[in-house]
Amino acid sequence: MTFPVVGVVGGGQLARMTHQASIPLGIRFRVLSGDPDDSAAQVIRDVQVGDHEDLAALREFARGCDVLTFDHEHVPTGHLRALAEDGHLVRPGPEALVHAQDKAVMRARLTGIGVPCPRWRPVSSLADVAELAEQAGWPVVVKATRGGYDGKGVWIPETEAEAVTLLAEAQARGVGLLVEERMDFQRELAVLVARSPHGQASVYPVVETVQVDGVCREVLAPAPGIAPDHAAAAQQAALRIAGELDVTGVMAVEMFDTKAGVFVNELAMRPHNSGHWTIEGARTSQFEQHLRAVLDLPLGAPTMTAPCAVMVNVLGGDQPDLYGGYLHCMARDPELKIHMYGKQVRPGRKVGHVTLVGDDLEDLRERGRHAAAYLRGEIDE
Amino acid sequence: MTFPVVGVVGGGQLARMTHQASIPLGIRFRVLSGDPDDSAAQVIRDVQVGDHEDLAALREFARGCDVLTFDHEHVPTGHLRALAEDGHLVRPGPEALVHAQDKAVMRARLTGIGVPCPRWRPVSSLADVAELAEQAGWPVVVKATRGGYDGKGVWIPETEAEAVTLLAEAQARGVGLLVEERMDFQRELAVLVARSPHGQASVYPVVETVQVDGVCREVLAPAPGIAPDHAAAAQQAALRIAGELDVTGVMAVEMFDTKAGVFVNELAMRPHNSGHWTIEGARTSQFEQHLRAVLDLPLGAPTMTAPCAVMVNVLGGDQPDLYGGYLHCMARDPELKIHMYGKQVRPGRKVGHVTLVGDDLEDLRERGRHAAAYLRGEIDE
Repeated sequence: MTFPVVGVVGGGQLARMTHQASIPLGIRFRVLSGDPDDSAAQVIRDVQVGDHEDLAALREFARGCDVLTFDHEHVPTGHLRALAEDGHLVRPGPEALVHAQDKAVMRARLTGIGVPCPRWRPVSSLADVAELAEQAGWPVVVKATRGGYDGKGVWIPETEAEAVTLLAEAQARGVGLLVEERMDFQRELAVLVARSPHGQASVYPVVETVQVDGVCREVLAPAPGIAPDHAAAAQQAALRIAGELDVTGVMAVEMFDTKAGVFVNELAMRPHNSGHWTIEGARTSQFEQHLRAVLDLPLGAPTMTAPCAVMVNVLGGDQPDLYGGYLHCMARDPELKIHMYGKQVRPGRKVGHVTLVGDDLEDLRERGRHAAAYLRGEIDE
Repeated sequence: MTFPVVGVVGGGQLARMTHQASIPLGIRFRVLSGDPDDSAAQVIRDVQVGDHEDLAALREFARGCDVLTFDHEHVPTGHLRALAEDGHLVRPGPEALVHAQDKAVMRARLTGIGVPCPRWRPVSSLADVAELAEQAGWPVVVKATRGGYDGKGVWIPETEAEAVTLLAEAQARGVGLLVEERMDFQRELAVLVARSPHGQASVYPVVETVQVDGVCREVLAPAPGIAPDHAAAAQQAALRIAGELDVTGVMAVEMFDTKAGVFVNELAMRPHNSGHWTIEGARTSQFEQHLRAVLDLPLGAPTMTAPCAVMVNVLGGDQPDLYGGYLHCMARDPELKIHMYGKQVRPGRKVGHVTLVGDDLEDLRERGRHAAAYLRGEIDE
């Protein structure tokens, strides 16, 4: 067998969907999963159970792989460097991935290369927050540079007094912070780009991501009514970042669409929720594209299979039985594509998504919302 | 977890591709595989290694499944009946599946319900062959009713003398035979239909299958230039057979397209090579449709995602390294979809297929043929 082995660190739904894409390619697929019942581990033959923060486990895992890639950004940068020094192909590499791990590193680099970002500065004391608020006005956005605490990494203090409390708490926990202006945006966009080690890059159409309480609810592809110059600027920014940072694999760039143009919000160097629509909606899914990129194979066509695609996340609700809704949803809409992640339902947790492709965005959106609401038990007809 | 467990008997590429379809549905998937390295077993977590002719192994396998279905037709009918009597859901059931196992049973039933078939009769002596040849002319087609020998189940004697030799050989091996007229057909067609236990049925567009030396090489969807009345008759025949035989799951009906109309050649009660194009070319793939049908879920839309789809089989050639061709094929054609089965290359063996969808059938066909020939090592540019 000459087919290469791709190892994915992390057993979540992204690894699960990447496995699905690896099957037709004949690529051999391994996963390092924290738990034998993680989303991806349920459906893959070759699972190593281990901790992604344990360098010995990572090294053992890497020995069985031709290339290593990731389901998440949580592997310590030092461990990634050690694996690369061992001679393993780590894609994206540590010097690229750190930009998706550390928001201060990312902001410094992007502003350094002239990619539009919100005004920002690293926080070493209250003065940094106060100065930015003076320029940009309250509220401001404070972010943990890495991780966060209590399940949160972003805070929006309205006043200097709130910022004082926040900084004290973060300092006590040893969490580094940066502060950004709160942008007055019209909507949020995302651009998915893929880049391979030999330098080929490919970009998908710009999509609109609809967020509620900081959680992505819907993705509309392409972003409806987007000004052509904003779309082109967003795609160019994503391609530029991929090239400058020497990204290998898929990268999602989340952006704010404002009257003054597009500004980068966050980066993710892996398949991303904003690209799940590509499974049915693009000729090459983001998961296949990621595999092709990390294997340094030529990239696939990112063109859409229909004029529009809509993805709606299924968030955990009161209904623990997600299968119970299949009968009604499938009978109501024979074109509905359901994607479930094999995860236990917890309120607000992403447990699946649905996708619809076709000609009429509003129709697809209504049908997608209905199905997601029905599956989670929010509506009963 | 309330998601059902589907067990597939047989670890070939059909089980592999059905697993791929089970992942987004969240369906739990098990396979009974003859070898731990069979095509499907390579990519599935829950594999039982065992022999599909061993009733004890089948019973052990069935205990862990909510519904049983099949990658092939080789499970003895008696074993299927025993499993059904044990209370397992066997889909398709033994009384339906026998029509895909025994060609004499199939021909008797189809002619009994008035579905057009070639003239035929069971063979108990040379007189049966001679009488059919007298009506229909030499050569005739002689088929083993079940299985065959030396890897063959179909023979085409040109003369009575050849038939004498053939019958003696078959009798010595205990192989039952039937004889059919050799049809003067313009091309071969296939119709894929799905039917669920509650009686819903759904039919895909009629396709043309291009056979070389009795092996399917290409599938063209929809069958180019087919007369609308022939297409409708073919679909109606498939739906009729599915209903009359109480089929559950997907069934492929292979047909001859003749000046006098369409005639049934063979039945397969499982996903089928003639339906592989549906992975990209139809809103619901045959593999998802089979899962929905055997789980008695509402069926998905069988509509095409583009005006045309072409599937070309990759047959084993001189080149043992199938991955070696990826670089060239993917660079040449970013829209090409490659499907590899994880099988060792042997000359003539189906080791994968490629699919293209779009507007221009001849263009898709040229590209598909090129890719299949390049991957198998038949051409080098």
